[in-house]
Amino acid sequence: MDIAILVYDRFEALDAVGPFDVLRNLPGAKVTFVAKEVGPVKNSSGALTVLAEKAMRDVTSADILVVPGGFGQEQAMVDEETLAWVRAIDATSTWTTSVCTGSLILAAAGLLDGKKATCHWAALERLRQFNVEPTLERVVFQGKVVTAAGVSSGIDMALRLAQEIAGDDVAMAIQLGIEYDPQPPFDVGSPAKAPAHIVDMLRGLTRHTAASG
Amino acid sequence: MDIAILVYDRFEALDAVGPFDVLRNLPGAKVTFVAKEVGPVKNSSGALTVLAEKAMRDVTSADILVVPGGFGQEQAMVDEETLAWVRAIDATSTWTTSVCTGSLILAAAGLLDGKKATCHWAALERLRQFNVEPTLERVVFQGKVVTAAGVSSGIDMALRLAQEIAGDDVAMAIQLGIEYDPQPPFDVGSPAKAPAHIVDMLRGLTRHTAASG
Repeated sequence: MDIAILVYDRFEALDAVGPFDVLRNLPGAKVTFVAKEVGPVKNSSGALTVLAEKAMRDVTSADILVVPGGFGQEQAMVDEETLAWVRAIDATSTWTTSVCTGSLILAAAGLLDGKKATCHWAALERLRQFNVEPTLERVVFQGKVVTAAGVSSGIDMALRLAQEIAGDDVAMAIQLGIEYDPQPPFDVGSPAKAPAHIVDMLRGLTRHTAASG
Repeated sequence: MDIAILVYDRFEALDAVGPFDVLRNLPGAKVTFVAKEVGPVKNSSGALTVLAEKAMRDVTSADILVVPGGFGQEQAMVDEETLAWVRAIDATSTWTTSVCTGSLILAAAGLLDGKKATCHWAALERLRQFNVEPTLERVVFQGKVVTAAGVSSGIDMALRLAQEIAGDDVAMAIQLGIEYDPQPPFDVGSPAKAPAHIVDMLRGLTRHTAASG
């Protein structure tokens, strides 16, 4: 099972690595990190560099496509080569997925037209401009297209996908393997649950502001 | 605030990237990925390569040290240069932390002597050989040394640390920023909760078996 994870300048590391450390445990999984060119790609903050093993032109199909978000999604979603590649992989993929503002890339590629989708909460409304119905659900299945909410939600999305692909036992084994028994210190992980001053603080910060338009 | 994240051959990607995408949002945070040598370092499965920006000999202090686990911890925990570096950073760190089997590296460096600590559940009992009291808690604070359980627990650990360092509002803002509102498909993230056949399946797999001894 070929899994292609797109990376691009200023992608969000956890958007990619959460699903990676889940999906790579599927039976027969082979994961490839793909970028416009082979070589170093930096995360949103610039402190983490990953190496893309393949260039887009050398990857023509994948069973699962994972598109992360991050500051750099602004450039990626208007980059014709990126959009064409995402469309080409989607044409024969079994599953096409996104995390966080990665759904804006899928939307810009036309893959969410008329569908429901999620996104990082601060950028959710931007989906409307691509004829996509935004929803605050954490993981949204629409046929073979699966979108996840902000950053950490990629873990939940990938476990749900593992369940669809390989069944309950495999998905449970992966969840236990990564010891995913979440105990966050607060119950503030969505804007509906967080205090208003925290939501306002976040909206005011640079982080995801470009994305939230 | 200098944050050093150790990486080594066959580290677990999410162990490092979970805390990274939390702690890098602390005010004034500057994160450096550190390895024995500058250059490429592969994760447990070999599919993800990250670039270490600094060699151990060029990093002599950090406010926060993060030590991930992964298959490669077996080599790291008997590597004298690694253990000496971990001890040297700990000597002046404000916080010394680990995720998953990273606690075995801290233990082998002598930093957990007589303390309580956690680890990936399948490797937990190995802490005893270093005079460490194992506990299945998800995040364990012992003075300035903080250990987290398997893989995904690094996110919870880092949020707790953010709370200690920068207070509730900052920690809540980071949690909302990464939209950490976990909705795992099953409640099987610890061996106490998972069905026995899933626990047995995991114990039987190669994954973490080396670590669990």
